[in-house]
Amino acid sequence: MATATVDLGPVPDLWNRRHLLGLEDLSAEEITLILDKAEQFKQVISTGDRKIPLLAGKTCVNLFFENSTRTRNSFALAARRLGADTLDFSASTSSLSKGETFIDTAKNIEAMGIDLVVVRHRTPGTPHLLAQNLRCGVINAGDGAHEHPTQGLLDIMTIRQRKGRIDGLTVALVGDIAHSRTARSNIWGLQKLGAHVIVCGPSTLVSPQWTDLGVEYSYHLDDILPRVDVLNLLRIQFERQTTRPFPSVREYAHLYAMDRHRLAKTKSDILILAPGPINRGVEVTPEVADGPYSAILEQVTNGVAVRMAVIWLLLGKKSRSTA
Amino acid sequence: MATATVDLGPVPDLWNRRHLLGLEDLSAEEITLILDKAEQFKQVISTGDRKIPLLAGKTCVNLFFENSTRTRNSFALAARRLGADTLDFSASTSSLSKGETFIDTAKNIEAMGIDLVVVRHRTPGTPHLLAQNLRCGVINAGDGAHEHPTQGLLDIMTIRQRKGRIDGLTVALVGDIAHSRTARSNIWGLQKLGAHVIVCGPSTLVSPQWTDLGVEYSYHLDDILPRVDVLNLLRIQFERQTTRPFPSVREYAHLYAMDRHRLAKTKSDILILAPGPINRGVEVTPEVADGPYSAILEQVTNGVAVRMAVIWLLLGKKSRSTA
Amino acid sequence: MATATVDLGPVPDLWNRRHLLGLEDLSAEEITLILDKAEQFKQVISTGDRKIPLLAGKTCVNLFFENSTRTRNSFALAARRLGADTLDFSASTSSLSKGETFIDTAKNIEAMGIDLVVVRHRTPGTPHLLAQNLRCGVINAGDGAHEHPTQGLLDIMTIRQRKGRIDGLTVALVGDIAHSRTARSNIWGLQKLGAHVIVCGPSTLVSPQWTDLGVEYSYHLDDILPRVDVLNLLRIQFERQTTRPFPSVREYAHLYAMDRHRLAKTKSDILILAPGPINRGVEVTPEVADGPYSAILEQVTNGVAVRMAVIWLLLGKKSRSTA
Repeated sequence: MATATVDLGPVPDLWNRRHLLGLEDLSAEEITLILDKAEQFKQVISTGDRKIPLLAGKTCVNLFFENSTRTRNSFALAARRLGADTLDFSASTSSLSKGETFIDTAKNIEAMGIDLVVVRHRTPGTPHLLAQNLRCGVINAGDGAHEHPTQGLLDIMTIRQRKGRIDGLTVALVGDIAHSRTARSNIWGLQKLGAHVIVCGPSTLVSPQWTDLGVEYSYHLDDILPRVDVLNLLRIQFERQTTRPFPSVREYAHLYAMDRHRLAKTKSDILILAPGPINRGVEVTPEVADGPYSAILEQVTNGVAVRMAVIWLLLGKKSRSTA
Repeated sequence: MATATVDLGPVPDLWNRRHLLGLEDLSAEEITLILDKAEQFKQVISTGDRKIPLLAGKTCVNLFFENSTRTRNSFALAARRLGADTLDFSASTSSLSKGETFIDTAKNIEAMGIDLVVVRHRTPGTPHLLAQNLRCGVINAGDGAHEHPTQGLLDIMTIRQRKGRIDGLTVALVGDIAHSRTARSNIWGLQKLGAHVIVCGPSTLVSPQWTDLGVEYSYHLDDILPRVDVLNLLRIQFERQTTRPFPSVREYAHLYAMDRHRLAKTKSDILILAPGPINRGVEVTPEVADGPYSAILEQVTNGVAVRMAVIWLLLGKKSRSTA
Repeated sequence: MATATVDLGPVPDLWNRRHLLGLEDLSAEEITLILDKAEQFKQVISTGDRKIPLLAGKTCVNLFFENSTRTRNSFALAARRLGADTLDFSASTSSLSKGETFIDTAKNIEAMGIDLVVVRHRTPGTPHLLAQNLRCGVINAGDGAHEHPTQGLLDIMTIRQRKGRIDGLTVALVGDIAHSRTARSNIWGLQKLGAHVIVCGPSTLVSPQWTDLGVEYSYHLDDILPRVDVLNLLRIQFERQTTRPFPSVREYAHLYAMDRHRLAKTKSDILILAPGPINRGVEVTPEVADGPYSAILEQVTNGVAVRMAVIWLLLGKKSRSTA
């Protein structure tokens, strides 16, 4: 039976959180711990023995009020590789429509004997509200345009793998900054680990106020290309926008799409990331997306590893000293 | 690996049913057996080692023709905690729309090697029809306004836990009696165990004919409050009603909502139940729902334990004498 | 714990495919190997110990772009009985609607660490496109009107069980040949194993061009009845037709429905198959569908066994000589 019997030991004392609500709250040490554990999990599952039953008997629930088959499945896969059971309550808007409050729905789910709720909701702060009202663990899988911490972590993990470090790097987040929870999680996480962050996009999607978060901003991708180490090409989320923030997709692509001409202006070891699903020809051309500088599919692989690490840190066995 | 190795022994000889279709059919001894086993399962899973693989290799199917994420997941969780596999055919109305009959759909599912079908359907008697046509086990998860036996069992289990007995108690079912399968299952189960049952609600939802089932009826909640031990506040199921059975939600709440004024008129050890999802401010006010007399969330926890007990009794290993 | 510990040995050297895209590609030996292994799996799961954890740690994904709860669940059940994990990405048209290409969607799924993708799509050749672009295994679960190899295999397995052989048999496929991927997979598979195949139906659904595939064709079911050993009654797929290929369902049934009058004209050991869901009264009357010559439910049971065999051949441990 191809079940890996890995002993990662107990959850380190450094970690004493019950929830992962955002990267803004975490220390550099906590982020580094998640990344280190994710590396370990990635190494184990890459051998083909993908089951590490450290959490047998635990149950994780997906509670997604915004549709995302991919992220839901990435969390479900991570939980099951750790031996946990998974349940999906994502369609349970039905109970809400039956007159029940959001907190009642969550408390009912918890009362079934659930250990962890992974929640996505269009309202910022929803995971925090759940964490205050439940005794079980809560992971924020995206709350409006606020945070999406596991996406931030998988981006940072991918950078660290390729570059060997985060400290001292210059990372540009390009595109739809205004609507992006991924941008915020990246900014907080990267800065804590010592990176310099530039947000770049049209003035309708990037504003000088972003300097309040400690980042640099730019409207001109071509200007910053020569000095960045990493480009994270955020998806234009047409579905989140009530008005068109730029005249046409063609104009956006003309100014911001990473193509081979822009690639020629970058450092020779440029790293290109993009949280999927990508719009080919909008944020990035196929030759760049599929080229050697792109780590787009590694991000997906790292996503499962990061989620395994987070779930294990939240639910795994503590050492006696902290139990 | 946190898998519990509990030996509950074989399924007792007293139990020789292949289906759970309703509480009307069961004896007091059978109901008590289910409750006793549910207590055992509840105790085991409360330790955190929530997997009891007594049914490894078995497969349970949810076949829900009415939407209910919560009940479906409660059954799925119960089956998986026993080590069984679960499949969901609830969306398979598609095959029915392709011209197949209901029995053909069920026989096809059974032919895949299924051990148990958990069925919900708006037509009373559907589970009985399945039981006659399939060789595998069938659990009624709600057939129209007829029965919902596991809901009845979890209500009774919660009462027994809090009160230590059922015999001699006076239990009032309040609200939408006419449309409630939960009411019927409670009435049959409670009476078999020796409780006195009162159904209470507006005359459009409660009629003198209910006395045929052996219960008392009342239109006035305030009149019966002083002498009941348990109040089970049924949900007003707006989605089942073609005409409005009362002038307004406000008027209903005025006459039947459990609030602190009504609470003051009850016995000092009143127990308040409500099968979720609750309409706060309609059947019950928040201060009562979240107060010390309420066992609403315990009902949910007990629901998983009751379903584990029923599934195990139907699929578990019999002792040699009966095999 | 009722987990079967069967040792089927390594995957035979004869098998060195990574995908199952159609029966047109397979040799008679490969088809026979699948059927033989399916028999073994069927025997094991018929004992009640239905879990054979040969593929623990592997993950299989359903990627269905056409709705089919039944086929999806048959594949999922087969994978889980082998101890593999399953994930369903069938709703992930959402990502496609977000602007992502089909190949990107599949590559993203694969990047999560998936071993096998089971794909259904209305466009012929889609599974082949995936197989060219992914490193993981691909099973065609139906591509337009092209192939549905596991359906062909389960039909052939059922014939072989009942008749003891395929070689020398005359098998008629009746009905909606034009729109049927099942017809094509049956034709290729049956002919490779030595059967004579007749396609039979109205001239709007059967044409002389089918002789290009090596089969005989007929418009008149009554003419061929006396000399066929097996009748496979294909479903009239109203949902695939843009125009009505015959004047009325009643006229179709008059000419092609298997009823007791037609049954009287067949060989005494006629075998009747039908890939569900069946339209009772259209392709087949209830007395024939439920009678002793019908193997309709055995087909469903064999479907799980065939899928277990295919999944195991694709993902199971190879012997050292080929590894």
